[in-house]
Amino acid sequence: MTHTIMAREIAEQPEAIARTLESLLPLRTELKTLAESRRVVLFVARGSSDNAAIYGRYLLEVHAGVPGGLAAPSVATHYHSDLDLSEALVVSVSQSGETAEIVETQAWAAAHGARTIAVTNDGGSALAGAADLALVTQAGAELAVPATKSYTTQLAAMAVLADALAAKPGTLDADLDRVPGEVQRLIERREGVDEAAERLASTPETLVSGRGITFGTALEAALKLEETCLRPVRGLSYADLRHGPIAVVDAEHVALLVSAADGPMVSGMTELAHDLRRRGAAATIGIGGDAGFAGAVDVCVPGPALRELVAPLALVVPAQLTVEALARRLGLDPDAPRGLSKVTQTDPAGS
Amino acid sequence: MTHTIMAREIAEQPEAIARTLESLLPLRTELKTLAESRRVVLFVARGSSDNAAIYGRYLLEVHAGVPGGLAAPSVATHYHSDLDLSEALVVSVSQSGETAEIVETQAWAAAHGARTIAVTNDGGSALAGAADLALVTQAGAELAVPATKSYTTQLAAMAVLADALAAKPGTLDADLDRVPGEVQRLIERREGVDEAAERLASTPETLVSGRGITFGTALEAALKLEETCLRPVRGLSYADLRHGPIAVVDAEHVALLVSAADGPMVSGMTELAHDLRRRGAAATIGIGGDAGFAGAVDVCVPGPALRELVAPLALVVPAQLTVEALARRLGLDPDAPRGLSKVTQTDPAGS
Repeated sequence: MTHTIMAREIAEQPEAIARTLESLLPLRTELKTLAESRRVVLFVARGSSDNAAIYGRYLLEVHAGVPGGLAAPSVATHYHSDLDLSEALVVSVSQSGETAEIVETQAWAAAHGARTIAVTNDGGSALAGAADLALVTQAGAELAVPATKSYTTQLAAMAVLADALAAKPGTLDADLDRVPGEVQRLIERREGVDEAAERLASTPETLVSGRGITFGTALEAALKLEETCLRPVRGLSYADLRHGPIAVVDAEHVALLVSAADGPMVSGMTELAHDLRRRGAAATIGIGGDAGFAGAVDVCVPGPALRELVAPLALVVPAQLTVEALARRLGLDPDAPRGLSKVTQTDPAGS
Repeated sequence: MTHTIMAREIAEQPEAIARTLESLLPLRTELKTLAESRRVVLFVARGSSDNAAIYGRYLLEVHAGVPGGLAAPSVATHYHSDLDLSEALVVSVSQSGETAEIVETQAWAAAHGARTIAVTNDGGSALAGAADLALVTQAGAELAVPATKSYTTQLAAMAVLADALAAKPGTLDADLDRVPGEVQRLIERREGVDEAAERLASTPETLVSGRGITFGTALEAALKLEETCLRPVRGLSYADLRHGPIAVVDAEHVALLVSAADGPMVSGMTELAHDLRRRGAAATIGIGGDAGFAGAVDVCVPGPALRELVAPLALVVPAQLTVEALARRLGLDPDAPRGLSKVTQTDPAGS
């Protein structure tokens, strides 16, 4: 039992996710109408919100069959490009709804013909006010700098959006219903968390990998480790890792591998765990996966009993717990990492 | 003067780029016809080719006003999603033209309505054979594992593609004509290269940053450092860096900053250099930029006198020279990094 604000906010997630789903699921008809005649969904985001958008993009393509992509904000904010977005639905994601480049990019998209959806934790924010439709997450005030409940409620918004745009909405409902309970169970059990933090503390180099639907989860785990534990961490899909960077793995490296319990990525993630061990990695820590995956890693941190499509809503929780434990283990304050503030800006003021 | 194969292939780039431009520029009318009624260009690539695609995406959006994006290959190869790509032009990029997931993703895209372009160094490859149009780069055989001339000739193909799709083709011609000469000049002078390698050798943690049109250049510099010098390196846009990961920068970090000499990113990159110094980074190395940028970094490696839109074709060259010098400085063989082969596959055979 810890008493950091981050730990408390991690523990608030079952209720935050349940409230968000309850609030957003009734908007599916409105979302469907807004998306009519739109052929592509583009996400605008940065940081943790960007990792939520990556889940949104995969889920849209895999579950709803709708092409998705990530907009490059600088094309709007720095190059002022004149793109025709009259077939695009643009989804901007920002916890505060006040990050200047995201607000500006949404305005640019609307001016170029896009319909706009804001995913934000503040219904009174500039982003929400300017969007055609706001999906307001119900995380409540988030005080720790590392995003936890604001991130998982964004994932809930992504699941609602993808389900709304699917040919037959509603097929994710039963799985989504089970998410808060699974998150609660993972938080109560904390299985493997302290051992994972111990292994991560033992070596300076960390690599995080996942792929497909859980790729955003891997990137989010990497970002949290980096920001909160002040470790240089690389997050890569296993395909990108295998394509080259795997060459750097040695006994200085610990690898954190993220996998759903089912789906087409489990076998590749399991093979990656074996490969990293053969290459002499200091340790492999597995979050989630199936029995074969658990057997292939040195430390197993169990994930949720949810199918891959919705697993990310809970799979990040053991990673959050591990990050919080590691920060304390390293003598750091997980609530206020050095040099970061809650509303982020990406350019100096006035630039 | 060094005698590695990598050094020789770096030196072959002026001719390789000139040959490629000469060969591909006449295909602009054909490219324009192929793109007719296509509203979006999606790139399919991995590794260095992916970094070339990132340049292609920015250039299309900024120069041609055509929305671009990066396809997620696993949506095709692992999830077998049923996306409507009848408004997409899909550009697959692979040096060998034989990477299985790229060939498979191109076939999937065609089956889902996309028109297809292959950018490859082998006109006889599976990728070239199956595409509606092949843009065959004229790099010649590339023997060193780290891609150099195959990468810059891919960039040349991207410039031809973006120029072909612009409302008024031909406006990049004068700049493109000057690329081979600028590359030649940078290779002959090697200004700042050995000092940059020396600084990089002095500390284990490396961070690479750029943004917008030169973001792909930064990612390519990071990938080359990682694969060739076996250093864990993170490549981030300055916006992503500022959004959080900048918190980890300390006296263990050296930062490699990549900037064009003009354009909207120079001021942000210069401010980043100042910021990293304030945060106590071990050293900042600047590749390219203007006089203000050169004054803000500890070590300056001059870039080409080319405007931002085409600068990446030459700006990566000082980075290649630095990587080659650093590998030798570290006692490594730049031609054959540990654990990598030339034709890359991202999944175990049969998976």
